[in-house]
Amino acid sequence: MGYSPLIDRLVESLRCLPGVGPKSAQRMAFHLLERNREGALALSDNLRQAVEGIGNCRSCRTLTEHDQCSLCASDRRDRTVLCVVETPADVLVLEKATGFRGLYFVLMGHLSPLDGIGPKELGMDLLLDRLDQGEIVEVILATNATVEGEATAHYISQAARSRGIRSTRIAHGVPLGGELEYIDGGTLSHAFADRRET
Amino acid sequence: MGYSPLIDRLVESLRCLPGVGPKSAQRMAFHLLERNREGALALSDNLRQAVEGIGNCRSCRTLTEHDQCSLCASDRRDRTVLCVVETPADVLVLEKATGFRGLYFVLMGHLSPLDGIGPKELGMDLLLDRLDQGEIVEVILATNATVEGEATAHYISQAARSRGIRSTRIAHGVPLGGELEYIDGGTLSHAFADRRET
Repeated sequence: MGYSPLIDRLVESLRCLPGVGPKSAQRMAFHLLERNREGALALSDNLRQAVEGIGNCRSCRTLTEHDQCSLCASDRRDRTVLCVVETPADVLVLEKATGFRGLYFVLMGHLSPLDGIGPKELGMDLLLDRLDQGEIVEVILATNATVEGEATAHYISQAARSRGIRSTRIAHGVPLGGELEYIDGGTLSHAFADRRET
Repeated sequence: MGYSPLIDRLVESLRCLPGVGPKSAQRMAFHLLERNREGALALSDNLRQAVEGIGNCRSCRTLTEHDQCSLCASDRRDRTVLCVVETPADVLVLEKATGFRGLYFVLMGHLSPLDGIGPKELGMDLLLDRLDQGEIVEVILATNATVEGEATAHYISQAARSRGIRSTRIAHGVPLGGELEYIDGGTLSHAFADRRET
C-alpha cells in the first residue's frame, strides 16, 4: 500500500485475526471504511471491552467476565461429573450437542512440552485440587483426538484413577454419515478394534 | 452462546467484517481472547483511529487522512490523464500492475439506480468540474467489466466526449494464461469480436 499510514496500520492489525491474510485484511479495511463505519466503531469498542473485561473462571478456567462462569455458578448442574476440554469453544459445542448436565474444566490448551506448555500452564494444580475435594465421581476426558490431546487425557486419567475416581474418554471412531472409503486408516483401525456387541 | 454477554457482543460485531460468518467470528473472538490480547487492543485502536481520521480526498474522492491524497498532491504525476475507477482498492492494483503516471478519480461505487446510486452519489459533479477545467486530455475508464461498471463507463465517456476529451476503456478479453475452454462465452465472444492485427 503506502499511501495512507492509518489504512496501512488498520490492514496490518486486521491480520491478527486467524485466517486473515494481506488480501482479506485489505478488503476488510476498505469495506469498513467505505460502507460500515458504525460497525467498525462498535467492533473497536467491543474488542476493548472484551479484552479488559474477560478473564478466567476461578473454578473451570473458561473465559468469563465474572469471577466464576455461569455454568460453574449454576445450582442446576451435577457437581459430581467433570468434563475436561481443551478450549472454551469445546464447552459450547458440547453444551449444544449433548445433554451433559455436569461441570467442565477448561485446560486452555493441551500438553505440549516443546512449546513450553506443561501441567502448570494448563492449570493442573487447580484440577487436582478439585479431584482431591472428593465431590467428583467421574472425569470425562473430552480433549481432542490428536496426539497432544491423547497425551493430555492420559495424564489426567492417571491422576484421577490414582485418587479412585472413574475416568472415561469420549469414543473415537467413524463419524455418523462417514463412508469407510473416505475415513483415514488410523480412525478405521481404531474403530475396528473398538467394535461393540450389537 | 449465551454465557458471556461481552464475548457474545464481540462475536456479533466481528460479523460486520466481510466474509465472516458466525463460526469464524466465534473462532476469531476466542483466538484473540486466548492468545492475542495485545493484537486485539491494537486492532481496536486502529479501527477507531481509521474511522475517525480517514475521509475522502477532495480531488479524487479516494480514502485518505489528509485533505488531498498523496497521489493527487504529488507533483510527479501527469495531470493530463485521468483514470476513473470504482474503489480505492482498484487504485492500488493499478498502481502495482501498471506504469500509469497520471491521476485517478475514484467513484466509490458504480451507477446503480435501484440502490439509489446515481451520478450525484458518485461525485460526478466533481468529475465534470475537473473535465471542464480543460487540463485533462484523456479519460481512461477502468470501471469493472460488469453491467453496472459498463453503464458507469458509458455515462462518463459521453460526458468526456461532449467536451472534446479523449475517452478510452481498458481492454476486455481472455486473461493471460487463460485457456479458451474455461473462459465464459461472453468474454470469448467479446475477445473474438475485438481481435487485433498481429
